Amino acid sequence: MTQVMVPSLLERIKGLAKSWLDVAGSAKGCEALNFAPDLSDDDLACLRGQMQACLDGKGGEVSARARAAALGREYLSLSTEGRRRFLKLAADEFGPDSHAVDQAMEALRQAPADKRALAEQRLRQVLEPPRLTLLTQFNALPEGVKFLVDMRAELAVLAKGDAGLRALEADLKGLLAAWFDVGFLELRRLTWASPANVLEKLIHYEAVHAIHGWDDLKNRLDSDRRLYGFFHPRMPDEPLIFVEVALVQGMSGDIHQLLDLNAPPGNPEAADTAIFYSINNAQRGLNGISFGNFLIKRVVEELTREFKSLKTFATLSPLPGFRPWLEAKLGTGEPGLLTGPEHRALAQISNGLAAKGSLKTLLADPAWIDDSHLAETLRAPLSRLAARYLAEERKAGDRAIDPVAHFHLSNGARIERLNWLADTSAKGLAQSCGLMVNYLYKLDDIETNHEAYAGRGKVVISQGVKALLKG
Amino acid sequence: MTQVMVPSLLERIKGLAKSWLDVAGSAKGCEALNFAPDLSDDDLACLRGQMQACLDGKGGEVSARARAAALGREYLSLSTEGRRRFLKLAADEFGPDSHAVDQAMEALRQAPADKRALAEQRLRQVLEPPRLTLLTQFNALPEGVKFLVDMRAELAVLAKGDAGLRALEADLKGLLAAWFDVGFLELRRLTWASPANVLEKLIHYEAVHAIHGWDDLKNRLDSDRRLYGFFHPRMPDEPLIFVEVALVQGMSGDIHQLLDLNAPPGNPEAADTAIFYSINNAQRGLNGISFGNFLIKRVVEELTREFKSLKTFATLSPLPGFRPWLEAKLGTGEPGLLTGPEHRALAQISNGLAAKGSLKTLLADPAWIDDSHLAETLRAPLSRLAARYLAEERKAGDRAIDPVAHFHLSNGARIERLNWLADTSAKGLAQSCGLMVNYLYKLDDIETNHEAYAGRGKVVISQGVKALLKG
Amino acid sequence: MTQVMVPSLLERIKGLAKSWLDVAGSAKGCEALNFAPDLSDDDLACLRGQMQACLDGKGGEVSARARAAALGREYLSLSTEGRRRFLKLAADEFGPDSHAVDQAMEALRQAPADKRALAEQRLRQVLEPPRLTLLTQFNALPEGVKFLVDMRAELAVLAKGDAGLRALEADLKGLLAAWFDVGFLELRRLTWASPANVLEKLIHYEAVHAIHGWDDLKNRLDSDRRLYGFFHPRMPDEPLIFVEVALVQGMSGDIHQLLDLNAPPGNPEAADTAIFYSINNAQRGLNGISFGNFLIKRVVEELTREFKSLKTFATLSPLPGFRPWLEAKLGTGEPGLLTGPEHRALAQISNGLAAKGSLKTLLADPAWIDDSHLAETLRAPLSRLAARYLAEERKAGDRAIDPVAHFHLSNGARIERLNWLADTSAKGLAQSCGLMVNYLYKLDDIETNHEAYAGRGKVVISQGVKALLKG
Amino acid sequence: MTQVMVPSLLERIKGLAKSWLDVAGSAKGCEALNFAPDLSDDDLACLRGQMQACLDGKGGEVSARARAAALGREYLSLSTEGRRRFLKLAADEFGPDSHAVDQAMEALRQAPADKRALAEQRLRQVLEPPRLTLLTQFNALPEGVKFLVDMRAELAVLAKGDAGLRALEADLKGLLAAWFDVGFLELRRLTWASPANVLEKLIHYEAVHAIHGWDDLKNRLDSDRRLYGFFHPRMPDEPLIFVEVALVQGMSGDIHQLLDLNAPPGNPEAADTAIFYSINNAQRGLNGISFGNFLIKRVVEELTREFKSLKTFATLSPLPGFRPWLEAKLGTGEPGLLTGPEHRALAQISNGLAAKGSLKTLLADPAWIDDSHLAETLRAPLSRLAARYLAEERKAGDRAIDPVAHFHLSNGARIERLNWLADTSAKGLAQSCGLMVNYLYKLDDIETNHEAYAGRGKVVISQGVKALLKG
Repeated sequence: MTQVMVPSLLERIKGLAKSWLDVAGSAKGCEALNFAPDLSDDDLACLRGQMQACLDGKGGEVSARARAAALGREYLSLSTEGRRRFLKLAADEFGPDSHAVDQAMEALRQAPADKRALAEQRLRQVLEPPRLTLLTQFNALPEGVKFLVDMRAELAVLAKGDAGLRALEADLKGLLAAWFDVGFLELRRLTWASPANVLEKLIHYEAVHAIHGWDDLKNRLDSDRRLYGFFHPRMPDEPLIFVEVALVQGMSGDIHQLLDLNAPPGNPEAADTAIFYSINNAQRGLNGISFGNFLIKRVVEELTREFKSLKTFATLSPLPGFRPWLEAKLGTGEPGLLTGPEHRALAQISNGLAAKGSLKTLLADPAWIDDSHLAETLRAPLSRLAARYLAEERKAGDRAIDPVAHFHLSNGARIERLNWLADTSAKGLAQSCGLMVNYLYKLDDIETNHEAYAGRGKVVISQGVKALLKG
Repeated sequence: MTQVMVPSLLERIKGLAKSWLDVAGSAKGCEALNFAPDLSDDDLACLRGQMQACLDGKGGEVSARARAAALGREYLSLSTEGRRRFLKLAADEFGPDSHAVDQAMEALRQAPADKRALAEQRLRQVLEPPRLTLLTQFNALPEGVKFLVDMRAELAVLAKGDAGLRALEADLKGLLAAWFDVGFLELRRLTWASPANVLEKLIHYEAVHAIHGWDDLKNRLDSDRRLYGFFHPRMPDEPLIFVEVALVQGMSGDIHQLLDLNAPPGNPEAADTAIFYSINNAQRGLNGISFGNFLIKRVVEELTREFKSLKTFATLSPLPGFRPWLEAKLGTGEPGLLTGPEHRALAQISNGLAAKGSLKTLLADPAWIDDSHLAETLRAPLSRLAARYLAEERKAGDRAIDPVAHFHLSNGARIERLNWLADTSAKGLAQSCGLMVNYLYKLDDIETNHEAYAGRGKVVISQGVKALLKG
Repeated sequence: MTQVMVPSLLERIKGLAKSWLDVAGSAKGCEALNFAPDLSDDDLACLRGQMQACLDGKGGEVSARARAAALGREYLSLSTEGRRRFLKLAADEFGPDSHAVDQAMEALRQAPADKRALAEQRLRQVLEPPRLTLLTQFNALPEGVKFLVDMRAELAVLAKGDAGLRALEADLKGLLAAWFDVGFLELRRLTWASPANVLEKLIHYEAVHAIHGWDDLKNRLDSDRRLYGFFHPRMPDEPLIFVEVALVQGMSGDIHQLLDLNAPPGNPEAADTAIFYSINNAQRGLNGISFGNFLIKRVVEELTREFKSLKTFATLSPLPGFRPWLEAKLGTGEPGLLTGPEHRALAQISNGLAAKGSLKTLLADPAWIDDSHLAETLRAPLSRLAARYLAEERKAGDRAIDPVAHFHLSNGARIERLNWLADTSAKGLAQSCGLMVNYLYKLDDIETNHEAYAGRGKVVISQGVKALLKG
Repeated sequence: MTQVMVPSLLERIKGLAKSWLDVAGSAKGCEALNFAPDLSDDDLACLRGQMQACLDGKGGEVSARARAAALGREYLSLSTEGRRRFLKLAADEFGPDSHAVDQAMEALRQAPADKRALAEQRLRQVLEPPRLTLLTQFNALPEGVKFLVDMRAELAVLAKGDAGLRALEADLKGLLAAWFDVGFLELRRLTWASPANVLEKLIHYEAVHAIHGWDDLKNRLDSDRRLYGFFHPRMPDEPLIFVEVALVQGMSGDIHQLLDLNAPPGNPEAADTAIFYSINNAQRGLNGISFGNFLIKRVVEELTREFKSLKTFATLSPLPGFRPWLEAKLGTGEPGLLTGPEHRALAQISNGLAAKGSLKTLLADPAWIDDSHLAETLRAPLSRLAARYLAEERKAGDRAIDPVAHFHLSNGARIERLNWLADTSAKGLAQSCGLMVNYLYKLDDIETNHEAYAGRGKVVISQGVKALLKG
């Protein structure tokens, strides 16, 4: 089994070991825990006792928290297998009291109508598993909330194929969803005057357009940029999600311009457009608990307040699934995928290669972008297919198949413009054939667009994209 | 029906009305809510639609929050009857889906052992009532968390005799318990340099020894005093619980000295004893969610760090139920309540009044404390009976009948000393016959004491109190 | 000789004594200072030695500061006479080196043109008195800057008739002027959420319209009010100057409305006018170092930013010298002080009293405001005379004789409107015969108005005031 | 003439240009300043007028500050020659009023004894040059204080050989000395959680042991390190001076260990020694205004409070002038510079090279440190000579000739230990022949040591160093 611990957790074991040891120090009977990395059967027996003591609140609640600290330290020192056994123990042996559950179900079944709400409430209480109480107790530890977030990230991997661990993971998700309700989050603007230990995390977590060191980061925090993130009061150094914004004139269609360290900063007061060019979820352990929607709307509010001349809010986004989708389509040989003229244009270039594989073959060598004639020939069919991919391809539930498209369409944006050769990095070619797309957030239409997409799967597109679709 | 709205809520209606209106402004279809104070049937129908729209997330989550703001504003403008109907609607019509609950119960009943945890988890999810989601949406509003806390305080009154509202109240308690977990609270020291709007709350919430204006407050924040409270990040101006501490030499036995505005401040560096002379829960809406235990221990830690010479940590506490208990005992004429010598001593004073009622009669006139001979005669029997009341009287579950005693004994304190004429205010005489008690927090014994009391109902008392009990 | 120590200093002696003792503790040879309150001759000799040691920097600069702390403590414990002697010693014996001064003057006299600047610079350095270095060393002590500010306030009184002390006072003024340059000050808005220990100072320092306790203060910090002050980073709890602003509709002409605790707060968003109704210099020790000009302009900026609908910025100000001036005029019997019709109108009321003293006599009994007929008769002459007093009466240098008028006219305001019965408090009658005046700050005219007044003594007045002047 | 502008100023011109333009915008008649980089004669005439207008306070003080902003912007846009002319104009034409100075000198000469202090005070006032008022007005601008600090750094270069500019430089020094009095400075600990824009400055300013990027910086902020700096409230992003401290066991004698990125962090709680391994003055414009003495003592206080187990406070310092001094000595051929045995030992190695130059020759090739036999042979003579250099060599006023030695000896430290091969970097070899020295700060002896050195030039050394000196 592979090591699944998330790096941030690995990194801080040493630091936490000390501070949690201090907390644990005040709890009696906890000093002797020195488990084997994989947890022996004896260790498991001892662990069971410790967990029970935690739950019994022996020595009072403060002691229980100290005991939790001792357990947490042990957890951090275990191997992946040890952790799996640790979590499995919690999942299997600290569930709800079956007898009480059965009784409460019976009571609910027999409850008269006017007492049903109360009977439901009681059943729900009885179903609250002790393992959840155990997990809750970590939150008072230094960085205890981050510990639980990272634990859920691990659990998501470990739980595959194990119903008990999946239940535990669902418990933890519920707990984190309550704690990370968007009402508890703080929107913070990050600047070059922000703490280095927070900025460092941006470098670490940026996954859309990698940040190459501190100079690159500083450039993204220049006077014509804004960077906002959501933070939780108990994880003040950890962005949950963050968005990078460029203040420009006209809608950007080229990511390289935005990332160019040597480009002089623009005048933000003169900007008419805010381009959201990178949005990153930073915490794998919060998967499925969404705040992206709120982030974009809050940032639009902030920017509107600060810059009176901003008129347009749009993204410059990748199409991460476009090329894989295209290759699959090319593989299945869907008739009519390319139009006749496109076929003919490509045929001239591909010099007698079998028509079927020709587009695939052409794209296989990333050097195509260096051949301006070839690139120009590819422009029309790829742009048209990209428009189709974004706007027309669906999966279950009328969702757009592109995850980024689905995110912005759900938020009420519309597909505004496709940009040719907008990201010619290796990643940009591999995912998006070099294309990028602007999603437009038009404030007055957001609700209507959202309703149309969420209710009927209707995707709103600009005239330009419509024209593209028609070829 | 009496008006149950808590004052703090009343006070801020005006302010919130405006800011919530701003939030609500962005939600479509919410403008027209102008309910009658008692909620007409038409209003209820409209309200039902609004609640449903909130839950459906029409227009996206941001709009749903805006809709919640509009509902919250309406709630604030209602009469008590209107609020009762508002809450009743939520309680009765936004419970879990009965059909889904029945299915999930059936699935649980049939789940194989290794799938039971997951089936339980799912049942628990299905039981989560939509009304809870509705309540959660208030938390993003300005002061929304305080709104929910106050709503629970109202609900506690309104729910009497109504199973549906009791279920709603239990839901809300669960939600608040998750949010106000002690791990999320901040311990803050309040000083004369703290914000006036927070200090003002101390005056408002102090219920043990009333604070008579700003001079009295300033005196309690002098250099030989400390005042600590727990705060929640989303209610930064509202103490949840707070404790007032005097740094003195020797264990205080007279509350008047501590509260005397004209007494010169002592030298805190020279103090050997910290007296916790007032502990107040400030939020009725958080009843049953306890942090007092944590507060005392955290404050002991802070004080230990700041003042190296502190050796003793003790309270100076009232016996709020002593006189009512005593009068009840006197009423039932329990034989042997007073010893023979006590009887005789009182008889001499009471001049032929019927022995049975004499103590009661003597106490009925609060002027007894001004008659030093009489007071001296009362000292022995009242002290002895107070010791018995604290240390020996029990209710169900081996709990001390005095609520303050139960609180400190649960925390691991011991009953250290009874102080005669320690609080001769009208309230002090009416509740405690002028007596006060020191509970001692001896750090090394706290766990053992807690265990003894929590497990076996054993109350730990000093030699002095033991002697008193023997008479 | 009367006690001149400012109260704030008296108050904090006890607190400082301790913290300065700690600082002093590290300096050798300082422990034994226990001077007599009036300073004996022996004490003076010892003090001389200590001052010299401070200046010599014996034991290094850190020790010198410690020694300064010891000296400061002694100073605080002295009587007024002791302090006078203390300061006199510093003034007389720690002046510049006469010999060096004479040499530097000689060098300057002989310096060639291109070296003159340097010779001047050197003379200036040589003239820097050691006593100034001594004073500077207090600034590192806790509250040391406030100590020096208060010392100057004392010195201003003590220095009367003593050239040496006046030189010391001038030194100190120069030092404070450098430190309190407006570039180092912070504009802070004070609200009900500001620290109580700062708000308390407002109550203490408000001298225009006394603040009657915390409820009155809270009213002045309500949502339709603003209160701004300048602060120095080393005196963070002490406002230097502060201004109280009401956000209203139309220009206020009645101070009682603004101060009424029972008036409901207005809607600040709807206000078109900001009324500066009280401006207070809080530190007597900073007399002659002005920041009022900056304060008003910075506050206008802040308000403009916050409230888009504000159009008018004006004061509602007393005429503190009006009645004394009027009585003097009446005393000298200036012919034509009253017009014929005014004479006749008053004569009818005063029922045959000698015309000469009649106005004076009428005003002598403050009950005149309760007699509406009498008040109405007084309105015309008093308003006209008030306009003359403000706009036409001058002292040396073309200054308006009213100090408040001079302040606002210097800032570029114009005299906009006189308000009859605008302040009928005892103080308002005694100073201003119940009148108040609006000074208008019209942003576009401020520079021109300032130039006209500062350069040519020209006072800008409104048409309405012009009409009044004509009678 | 070379460009002398300090880089930090160059960097921020663009930013300031904008914000100062905003400030300047409100001043009338300032818009048209568009000087040639070198300042034409016409420009000078215009500049003269602007400076005069600033001083006259035309349009009020706020306008004067705006005018200062306009002047500051012009200054920033000038070439070095332009700046020289700008400053020269201020220096020459805005000095004190000669006539008034002559009068005040005359008045002083004739003043009776009891009026002399006042006459001196007045002369000092009259000598205060208007150019100083001009400079003061920059302080209210954004980053205006830093502007003046950097201006002084430039002025120090430009003033060489120009008495007028030297006077201006002295004025500016006096102004900055008043503002940067140590009582106004804040000691701040910098950590990895400090703002990146401040940390970046550390990389920029570190001149003793260069910081190679962000990883190196992070290492110096690890849990076993401390970094403290002094800051001024008006330059919050700019350290004035900072010190890097390592918490170790035993006195460090090898800088490479301390700077090793791969060394695991030590346990600070277990450390008995704090090593000050780098102290840097960051602002050239504050030359001659000292705070190093205070910094070390404040840091010792802070560390003592935080870590109870620290017993020893010492530096690990370079001997920056050792090798140049040694080469000069070798050049002059001082007899007895090397002892007989040292001569003989070196002669064996240097293989018949002329004895006179041999040590010099050996050191000339930095590869000597790679030859362990050679290095061992050099150890004794170099260590002995280094001890002599530090402890016995003096310049005027009994000062140690090594500047670092002079700094620490003035602070009351003693020379504790010489460390062989402690810094074998190119710089370490070039300056210190690879040696480093520990200066020991023994708190009880600091005052005595300081007195001995400051008063009599007596250097306190350890037994070990004494032994070295004897050879």
